[in-house]
Amino acid sequence: MEASASVDRYMDVQGHMGRADLNAVLYPGAVAVVGASLSFGKWGQLILTNIIAGGFEGKIFPVHPKKSSLCGLKAYKKVTDIPQHVDVAFVTVPAAVVTSVVEDCGKKGVKGVVVISSGFSEVGAEGAELERKIVGICRHYGMALVGPNTMGIISPYAKLFATGAHTRPRAGGVAFVSQSGNLGNQLVHWASHQGIGISQFVGSGNEAMLGCAEYLEFLEQDDRARIIMLYMENVGQGRTFLEAARRVNRKKPVIVLKGGRTSAGKAAAASHTGSMGGEYPIFRAACRQAGILSVDAPAELLDLSAGFSSLPLPKGDRVGIVTLGGGWGVVTADTCNEKGLRVPPIPDSIIKRLNKYLPPFWSKGNPVDLVGTRDTEVPVVAVEELLKTDRIDAVISLGIIGRTELVRLLVDSTRRSDPDASQEELDEIVSFVDSYEEEYIATMVDLMERYEKPVIGVSLTRSDKGTVRSVEGKRYSGVFYQTPETAVNVLARMVQYWK
Amino acid sequence: MEASASVDRYMDVQGHMGRADLNAVLYPGAVAVVGASLSFGKWGQLILTNIIAGGFEGKIFPVHPKKSSLCGLKAYKKVTDIPQHVDVAFVTVPAAVVTSVVEDCGKKGVKGVVVISSGFSEVGAEGAELERKIVGICRHYGMALVGPNTMGIISPYAKLFATGAHTRPRAGGVAFVSQSGNLGNQLVHWASHQGIGISQFVGSGNEAMLGCAEYLEFLEQDDRARIIMLYMENVGQGRTFLEAARRVNRKKPVIVLKGGRTSAGKAAAASHTGSMGGEYPIFRAACRQAGILSVDAPAELLDLSAGFSSLPLPKGDRVGIVTLGGGWGVVTADTCNEKGLRVPPIPDSIIKRLNKYLPPFWSKGNPVDLVGTRDTEVPVVAVEELLKTDRIDAVISLGIIGRTELVRLLVDSTRRSDPDASQEELDEIVSFVDSYEEEYIATMVDLMERYEKPVIGVSLTRSDKGTVRSVEGKRYSGVFYQTPETAVNVLARMVQYWK
Repeated sequence: MEASASVDRYMDVQGHMGRADLNAVLYPGAVAVVGASLSFGKWGQLILTNIIAGGFEGKIFPVHPKKSSLCGLKAYKKVTDIPQHVDVAFVTVPAAVVTSVVEDCGKKGVKGVVVISSGFSEVGAEGAELERKIVGICRHYGMALVGPNTMGIISPYAKLFATGAHTRPRAGGVAFVSQSGNLGNQLVHWASHQGIGISQFVGSGNEAMLGCAEYLEFLEQDDRARIIMLYMENVGQGRTFLEAARRVNRKKPVIVLKGGRTSAGKAAAASHTGSMGGEYPIFRAACRQAGILSVDAPAELLDLSAGFSSLPLPKGDRVGIVTLGGGWGVVTADTCNEKGLRVPPIPDSIIKRLNKYLPPFWSKGNPVDLVGTRDTEVPVVAVEELLKTDRIDAVISLGIIGRTELVRLLVDSTRRSDPDASQEELDEIVSFVDSYEEEYIATMVDLMERYEKPVIGVSLTRSDKGTVRSVEGKRYSGVFYQTPETAVNVLARMVQYWK
Repeated sequence: MEASASVDRYMDVQGHMGRADLNAVLYPGAVAVVGASLSFGKWGQLILTNIIAGGFEGKIFPVHPKKSSLCGLKAYKKVTDIPQHVDVAFVTVPAAVVTSVVEDCGKKGVKGVVVISSGFSEVGAEGAELERKIVGICRHYGMALVGPNTMGIISPYAKLFATGAHTRPRAGGVAFVSQSGNLGNQLVHWASHQGIGISQFVGSGNEAMLGCAEYLEFLEQDDRARIIMLYMENVGQGRTFLEAARRVNRKKPVIVLKGGRTSAGKAAAASHTGSMGGEYPIFRAACRQAGILSVDAPAELLDLSAGFSSLPLPKGDRVGIVTLGGGWGVVTADTCNEKGLRVPPIPDSIIKRLNKYLPPFWSKGNPVDLVGTRDTEVPVVAVEELLKTDRIDAVISLGIIGRTELVRLLVDSTRRSDPDASQEELDEIVSFVDSYEEEYIATMVDLMERYEKPVIGVSLTRSDKGTVRSVEGKRYSGVFYQTPETAVNVLARMVQYWK
């Protein structure tokens, strides 16, 4: 395997990009797609159709050497032919042609270029030489350069979806920068399924000009980003990155997944991004010292995104557990202890209060086992009692949301087996559980706002409605993970950040 | 909290139940539901409607003190009034009445009783006394007793679904015994969503007569069960259990989730099943010595169920990785190393073979990065090459199945943005990706049968089609986890079992 050039060597010529440049890339009024195409699956088609179908409200200029229009839009032969101002150009033409396109962009006064094309430093010395030329041109004209070899960017607040994957998460508080395009795209796709709101996604690609440190600096200033997720294989100038991350992390959580932690991963990363790696234990220790959370699995980035962006931070490690079944309470308590969280006894006053609602043999302790109660009031009372006491910092509530799915199954069975069952009553039950679910979520969000403590839900079933359930006009959102271990892990990480 | 009586004290009066007794419970020709009801959500309604709607093909006899029919079935006042033979009775009447019902069952010659009713040893000394009486009656008549305080049983091969949760997994190879009813029910529900086939589910409840050791002995002999999952809070007579588990585990994997591993979990378990716990490190060490896998999270039981029941066992720890994107390959390689699996270099002959299919800058190593190829042949070639070589024991393949979802999104965007796109061509693409997915799964199953090595898929998207994708008439099934960390963990556990 040919050793590909490290992108590190460009770092020394990096200036600090001003905010304005990336602002133009992420919140443009007008975009050009150079290499725009109608061939299904080509990059020029992927980017153009995604921008259009995603509902971008600014101007879109396809650039094509021959066609006069694409997708009903007037097309131009060159960027310099476009009669109006262009903020950002997406470039999908073959590597050899990219330099002249970028030169055109510079002449035209474009503020930033997103170079999707591959064939640069990731493929060897020749590509690295091309990459250097592009950086030179961008610096000459003062243009921001994203990539090359990026899968694109997503900016939901600008309704700008410009990646190969046509997934469109809602606008929210999670910024995501990924050196791997397809890992990034896939995570954004999961985020979209889970209802997690994204502020920006940037596939940083080869990071010829802008690296994670620069994106961090931008996101530090952008209030739309409330939590920042990074996937990195190449840390570049480690000290610069860590300094930026430490500073930003004081304002908003910075969470890092490092690829290339092991010898097998490093070998894979070397052939992927040309990253030379470095020793992971040192990186992890540096992160820990700087208070930056590091995770080992992509899904954990998503889990933490949901929690950090939707819940108040806990101010301690004492967990109250409310469960609809004993076994789940046991498993959750075990996992809390194993993750360093405490499950302390609860005051007698709470036990007395709950005695009014529950059969005499209820658990009378923490976890609060609601013993399969069908009462709709007591789960709320139990959560609120735990939030009220200053002996509990956070609540994990298991099984309320998921229960509605099982009720639906039961209604279905009843219809099929009992010919005399009242269809009206059964309809009422279904509509009751549906509205109860929404009401319960709204109540949990209200409680979080009142007590400024997190309530983490565990649905125990797979919901099509996603992990994050937002409530109109509220600061916090309901979060319902499928498993207790996920809920406990997220809470433990939030406690770690709070510390 | 009142200390509830430990069920351990009954263990010494336990005889070894013969196979016949549990056979009658799990594969009955005729069942009675005592306490049958039409009140929505009552246990007598839950069990009766589930048995009917689940499609049980044997006879069903509701027992009700007044009604002459329920759900269109003739009802009887007492079990002894039923004119035909009854194999098993489900008992849902209040605890105080259970003794007389069980006595009736004995007189009638019923082979086994499943006592759903609660209010026994789990609520204190009085309940424990009642429980002792029931055990005495069952022993007197030679009846098997499941429970009391069980959430019921499921026996998909008998089309018998008799739990409170109306979830109905397909018949398959995973047996599941759970001391917690609702944890068990929920896991069966997940299994059903994930396409995991269940051979039996038993909520063992208070285990007054039959405990995990006895169920293990039964499942050892039942060929329908190919892998056995246990959730235990109370290990009972630890030595008896471990001896049974060790013996059975040599024939089929026994996997244990122990509740009450920590002080918080133990406290919760004490109030849940009255379990006194014991020291988890000792239990875990004993399991390890006996070769029994123990896990810490409910979801892991499911993950392992899917893998162990669907894939050939790996005969070594050397993993080949095939990925559609570099980042995912890096993350997977890292996780393999962290879980003790090797990702060795691959022979030059494979690299030469793949050179014919891939662009010159492909990874040329393990992970095999297919660089986002759209070729449909090369992913299969890559997997087969890795299966062929004796330097690789198992393959993890990332991204093929999930990709189809992204293609559908792209087709949708194209329809919306390009007025001139050929609708026919787009329809063809969709039907192609749909059939390609099924074809790919069938090919993977064929390859597993030919090479007797596991191929673990990672879909990277959430599929409605579940984790396990079975192929008509095949010994193995396709398994597609959503994340690489799950795939790697399952593989690592399979290697651990193989050792």
